[in-house]
Amino acid sequence: MAFLLTSEFVEHIEQLIAQKDGNALKELFLDFHFADFAEVLEELDSDDATYLIKLLESEITSEALMEVDEDVREKILDRLSPKEIAQELAEMDTDDAADVIGELDEDIQKKVISKIKDEEHAADIVELLKYDEDTAGGLMAKELVRVKETWTIAGCVREMRRQAKNVTRVHSIYVVDKEDKLKGRLSLKDLLTAPEKARISDVYIPKVDYVTVHTEGEEVARIMQRYDLEAIPVVDDHGVLVGRITIDDIVDFIKDEAEKDYQMAAGISSDVEADDSIWLLTRARLPWLVLGLFGGLGSVYIMKGFDEAISNYVELFFFTPLIAAMAGNVGVQSSAIIVQGLANDNVKGSLFKRLLKEVGLALINGIALAVLVIVFGYIAGLDQRVAFTIAISMLSVIIVAALVGTFVPIILNKKGIDPAIATGPFITTSNDIFGIFLFFYLSKIILGF
Amino acid sequence: MAFLLTSEFVEHIEQLIAQKDGNALKELFLDFHFADFAEVLEELDSDDATYLIKLLESEITSEALMEVDEDVREKILDRLSPKEIAQELAEMDTDDAADVIGELDEDIQKKVISKIKDEEHAADIVELLKYDEDTAGGLMAKELVRVKETWTIAGCVREMRRQAKNVTRVHSIYVVDKEDKLKGRLSLKDLLTAPEKARISDVYIPKVDYVTVHTEGEEVARIMQRYDLEAIPVVDDHGVLVGRITIDDIVDFIKDEAEKDYQMAAGISSDVEADDSIWLLTRARLPWLVLGLFGGLGSVYIMKGFDEAISNYVELFFFTPLIAAMAGNVGVQSSAIIVQGLANDNVKGSLFKRLLKEVGLALINGIALAVLVIVFGYIAGLDQRVAFTIAISMLSVIIVAALVGTFVPIILNKKGIDPAIATGPFITTSNDIFGIFLFFYLSKIILGF
Repeated sequence: MAFLLTSEFVEHIEQLIAQKDGNALKELFLDFHFADFAEVLEELDSDDATYLIKLLESEITSEALMEVDEDVREKILDRLSPKEIAQELAEMDTDDAADVIGELDEDIQKKVISKIKDEEHAADIVELLKYDEDTAGGLMAKELVRVKETWTIAGCVREMRRQAKNVTRVHSIYVVDKEDKLKGRLSLKDLLTAPEKARISDVYIPKVDYVTVHTEGEEVARIMQRYDLEAIPVVDDHGVLVGRITIDDIVDFIKDEAEKDYQMAAGISSDVEADDSIWLLTRARLPWLVLGLFGGLGSVYIMKGFDEAISNYVELFFFTPLIAAMAGNVGVQSSAIIVQGLANDNVKGSLFKRLLKEVGLALINGIALAVLVIVFGYIAGLDQRVAFTIAISMLSVIIVAALVGTFVPIILNKKGIDPAIATGPFITTSNDIFGIFLFFYLSKIILGF
Repeated sequence: MAFLLTSEFVEHIEQLIAQKDGNALKELFLDFHFADFAEVLEELDSDDATYLIKLLESEITSEALMEVDEDVREKILDRLSPKEIAQELAEMDTDDAADVIGELDEDIQKKVISKIKDEEHAADIVELLKYDEDTAGGLMAKELVRVKETWTIAGCVREMRRQAKNVTRVHSIYVVDKEDKLKGRLSLKDLLTAPEKARISDVYIPKVDYVTVHTEGEEVARIMQRYDLEAIPVVDDHGVLVGRITIDDIVDFIKDEAEKDYQMAAGISSDVEADDSIWLLTRARLPWLVLGLFGGLGSVYIMKGFDEAISNYVELFFFTPLIAAMAGNVGVQSSAIIVQGLANDNVKGSLFKRLLKEVGLALINGIALAVLVIVFGYIAGLDQRVAFTIAISMLSVIIVAALVGTFVPIILNKKGIDPAIATGPFITTSNDIFGIFLFFYLSKIILGF
């Protein structure tokens, strides 16, 4: 059932577009899934893509427009009139429509909104535009099924038939009082199994998880995952039901967050993809490399400061990449575990206990590695005193790197800064510099140069 | 609405358990959400947790048992009789019950299954145990709402009322023929809006996404995300509808996958958490550190091979951590972008174009960094020839590292190996060694030592 887009197929479409063979194209895309159609759009040039959008029914094209990359969408929307854009938006759920419209220039936004025929839909979109993108208000859709607590089951079914026409998927039925304040929910199961004459107030579930329009997106994701929710109602400051967020939007959110953390760990700022332009990729990557470069230049200065060791203990300089690598790797391991723990909310207990554990862990790993270094020194015919010095200094570097890797994310998190920033080149670079300094400093004390 | 577990509350519970005050505990947990109750269980010792599981209704405890960490669950189940375990399983959906029972020893599995009163439920669980955990068969649940194409809407509603009792959440109604083969689906919306006398065959949607019991979990996740599905039906080799997978299970799956990739990038093998034992954490971390150590020792040998440079060009040795850091950082950046691109299926186009792009990108970044090195050399009073040599060698190292970082994951992926393995210490280490060798080799050619 997987759809595979071949270059032959794309060429075939391009030919049909060149021939302006609208009927053949309409038939070709008749049974297409919007996600597959979106993939086709991404392969075409902007004019061809726009031709298809104008040609086909908005029912098919609107969802595909949501699905394509932002830059592809921007180029297509540039080629559509406000009225044509409004036709696409009319078919979208309010949350998607608000996202798309939010990408347009403000003067075009107004023109497009004025062209939306359904006034309620337009008003809903305008309302959603007020909220910050990363809050529950920015994530929610206005489409939902709402019933009053005073209704009967039969009346409720009648009303639902009316409301369901505007709602793609019915998740939960939300129960409100006469002021539209959220009171609880009604499961479809209850609706199906309750007697027709029962009142909603007798059968609804008064316990309902909800968020307010101001709740952060990350918090919404955490609540929905924790309580296994497929949809969550959103209320305003007065407790009035104003929207709902569905799990499919949260799946995208979770994925985006995970990718952002992953990229941050790899030293890539801002969200980029393999297919982005060289310029975008450079802007995302170069700053971290410059940071690493300054770290490396710092190490140059540190080593210069210990250059009296060159005459007798030049081997120490051969070991600097090893020391830097160990400090970096241990630091990244420690910070990655803590960052994940913080994200999943399972970093508990006292700081002191965690400190003891990290030192213990670093000791076990460090001693094992130190033994290997001594064995290597023996095989390589290194002076025993030098081999032991390197092993002990490395052990100290590992312990310090583990502590830095553990506590920097915790401290950042306490200060309200995203701890993920501590997993990438930031921690590697500082551990490099500090590790090399500690290594030479301890070697100097032990060997006395 | 967020639940915050305080140590005072845990102590209070421990006291009540010590006093065997069952009524107070029952009242306390009456309105508790299962996820919050699970958090309480994780904080208690195993005997206390088991006491609570036995005390409270299975309706509450079974979901919490699913939610707790595997090691906590193992300890609790060890303390329950097969009959008590069977009571918990009776309240779980079949997919969860099968997961739990799969964790038990085989002889206990049989005893537990024989104690499950509902024979159909027991048979369903036994069937699910047959499938591999990471396939659609292992992920699916048997609970679903199934209607025959020959029924009327009214008959369908009657039958659904009966079936809905066993299904926690009604997602889609699946339509089957008389041999139970999947024919299509019926949306709740259609059910609500179609005339009562209409036949299912007139109103159902024949196009339905599905997977087979053998489909890999990763593929299921990809399909459900791509097509924004909240549930997907699973068929056997004959097209017979045998189960369905819901999005909440897939959310967990996506999160687990992202965490695995993230940990692999950080050099942590096997799934560990901040709160795991020191032994588990060591086993996950030490192998990668040893790999890094061997890489570092390799660098020692390489530098020894170039030790004739010490007398005239000792500065080169000061720059090795910088070279290693640059090679490592560039390699990780390149591989992280490719690994994500591969995971999201958007690495397209010819290899040659990608090669050109990576070289271009590395050139831009590398030249910017080389200029900085030359400026630094000027400020630090470095011999101009040496500064230029270092800058040019570094530029070459960056280009090679970018190519390695790009092509190693692509090649691994083509050979069917998880490319994520290439993002971690593996690529850093090989880039370190190779980078340092290239750096000295080019320096030797240019400076002629």
